[in-house]
Amino acid sequence: MPTSTTVASQATVSESNRSRILQHLYYHGICSRAQIAKALGLTPAAITKITARLIEAGIIEETGDMEGRLNRRSIGLNLDPTRFHVIGVKFARSLVEIGVFDLSGTALSIEDLPTVSEDTIPQTIADIHTKVGALLDADPAIIAIGMAVPGPYLREAGYTTVVSSMQGWRTINFLDEFDTAFRVPVFVEQDARAGVLAQHLFSDDGHCNNLAYYLLGEGVGLGVIDHGNLINGAQGTATELGHTSVDVNGLPCDCGNVGCLERYCSANAIHERINAAGIIADSPLMTHRQACNALFGLVCDGDRQATAILDEASRYIAYGCVTICNMFNPERIILGDIVSGAGQRLLDIVRDITSRRVSAEVIEATDIRLSQLPADATVAGAAAVAITQFLTTPSRFFDIS
Amino acid sequence: MPTSTTVASQATVSESNRSRILQHLYYHGICSRAQIAKALGLTPAAITKITARLIEAGIIEETGDMEGRLNRRSIGLNLDPTRFHVIGVKFARSLVEIGVFDLSGTALSIEDLPTVSEDTIPQTIADIHTKVGALLDADPAIIAIGMAVPGPYLREAGYTTVVSSMQGWRTINFLDEFDTAFRVPVFVEQDARAGVLAQHLFSDDGHCNNLAYYLLGEGVGLGVIDHGNLINGAQGTATELGHTSVDVNGLPCDCGNVGCLERYCSANAIHERINAAGIIADSPLMTHRQACNALFGLVCDGDRQATAILDEASRYIAYGCVTICNMFNPERIILGDIVSGAGQRLLDIVRDITSRRVSAEVIEATDIRLSQLPADATVAGAAAVAITQFLTTPSRFFDIS
Repeated sequence: MPTSTTVASQATVSESNRSRILQHLYYHGICSRAQIAKALGLTPAAITKITARLIEAGIIEETGDMEGRLNRRSIGLNLDPTRFHVIGVKFARSLVEIGVFDLSGTALSIEDLPTVSEDTIPQTIADIHTKVGALLDADPAIIAIGMAVPGPYLREAGYTTVVSSMQGWRTINFLDEFDTAFRVPVFVEQDARAGVLAQHLFSDDGHCNNLAYYLLGEGVGLGVIDHGNLINGAQGTATELGHTSVDVNGLPCDCGNVGCLERYCSANAIHERINAAGIIADSPLMTHRQACNALFGLVCDGDRQATAILDEASRYIAYGCVTICNMFNPERIILGDIVSGAGQRLLDIVRDITSRRVSAEVIEATDIRLSQLPADATVAGAAAVAITQFLTTPSRFFDIS
Repeated sequence: MPTSTTVASQATVSESNRSRILQHLYYHGICSRAQIAKALGLTPAAITKITARLIEAGIIEETGDMEGRLNRRSIGLNLDPTRFHVIGVKFARSLVEIGVFDLSGTALSIEDLPTVSEDTIPQTIADIHTKVGALLDADPAIIAIGMAVPGPYLREAGYTTVVSSMQGWRTINFLDEFDTAFRVPVFVEQDARAGVLAQHLFSDDGHCNNLAYYLLGEGVGLGVIDHGNLINGAQGTATELGHTSVDVNGLPCDCGNVGCLERYCSANAIHERINAAGIIADSPLMTHRQACNALFGLVCDGDRQATAILDEASRYIAYGCVTICNMFNPERIILGDIVSGAGQRLLDIVRDITSRRVSAEVIEATDIRLSQLPADATVAGAAAVAITQFLTTPSRFFDIS
């Protein structure tokens, strides 16, 4: 329909300009209308109109006179990151974590739910409804919920196609379960993609538009931002590094593929090797996180068997990093989640192997490091998913059209 | 500098609107100003101003009255794809191909240069200068040159970091050599990325915004468009599938990595296996393309050894396809270049293995097919690189600001 196309297009342009203004204030802090107009190439009239509606809706505020350039005085505009809160929910396999964050990514609270097993998934879902409901009742500043779930997550269908070693999660349709369950909108994203958004939004060390977050947890995942765009794939299942084969004749995986990376270096895979080696008392009773942390402790104490297990896993993590360099050529690769707790020893092995297996010009331009975020990147990432939606489609959250 | 920022931004906005209008006419054919205004959400005044300059510069033209909606008559605007031509140059390893194309991707001429060896690379470069110069002299409608080169191509530096089995190409800096050599601008792109642009611009079978071109030639390459964006990586070396390991304990490669895909299924790798098997007389004297074509002939005749060689290569091509699905989740994967000449037998093996190794929901939504373009996708792709630049930054080609 031509008429509705016109309306849609013009609404899209308005929303896009609102979003650009909000993002400018989010990333640059207090700015005058004139500064925003110059930075974004918008007319002063457009800025005045849009910011008036944003002020009226209580999203941004005037801060009084600020020193203008050329000694003119002007009014500053501010998007106060503490004014609004979001909830982030991280679904790993046995771990579910719920956090409340402000828009700058500062955690106001983080809570772990009881360890999940195949049998207790329904109870966990019920607990999430209760806990999130209580958080929303207690804090009217919460405007959205983000959820980070294991990939390959089908964005439209609402479920994950394979959750290796814990297939019970396949039966959960996150959209059916949560989409309209609360007073605020809910956004679901693949876990490592949420993690890369957290690194993009909340990292202190400079804005990087070519960024990869390499999730080394109960699964192995990857999120990539290429020239500012999140790589999604047609169904939202791209960057599925954990199920990419590092040995086409290797170990079979639940996904149907052979030699999948996560069979060699996920927290679960390492936990299996710890159990088989029998080097940690009661390790079969531990969570994957506990077993890995105990292993890292033994490595620090110089235990040879523990070190051999960690080093082998680290080599596979490095092979994954070689694939990341070849496939995505990011400027920065950030290692996070449980296995990144191995720290410098892991990082040294990864840097050594990538320096030999990736061409010199590429690896020299690639900064590989451990996550520096104060909270786990995936639970902060779940919050980042919600914040990104707020910054890009503000009219979904407030009546400002 | 605030002032120049303003100017830059406003120039960017104008160029962006010009580009959107040109692209709309390119993809949709003749349209009225009112139709363009509605489709793009621009004001009629802006359309009138921009299209006047485009007409004045001779880029688009008025076509006289066309039937308007609601029975109003209006003037049509047309971007005639035959009015402008571009040159495409494909650099494989031993193959260099030069074609002249119109904006719709129709080849007006295609010429192969003599087979290149390590020793004759300088002569080939000299030949390209001569041939391209002669084409430019003969055809004033040529507005740009696109070049498609093997990856990993460093976009800013201007050279390819590894050209397995023919490292002499590493010494060629394409930017130094060609950037200002001709009367029209030159654009250089990684070969398979050029190929995916050709599939995007020139394919008849519906516009697909999540598309992969899987280049199976003297190297193995990949170009990916994700939600309309070409995946580049920070230095332009992303989607380097050929040097992605399918076996981290496998065959060593010139790039430093181990078990690189192209060691198993490039035309060169297949040629080596043909020579080793001794099944084709004089095969060591043949070009890679000739040897592969002879192999495909033997397979058609039912030769068992030839079939075994092709089937093994096809399985590795399929493993690469599994990786493409996991890493990029495209809607469509198009197989092209020399080895795709194996046709239906190759396609059947690829479809069979991917159906078993990729999760059902993903592979069922992935259309894997052979390239349908009349010309080789990379030489057409080199032209597509130039055409894309014309459509996105028209003011580089014409004085229309």
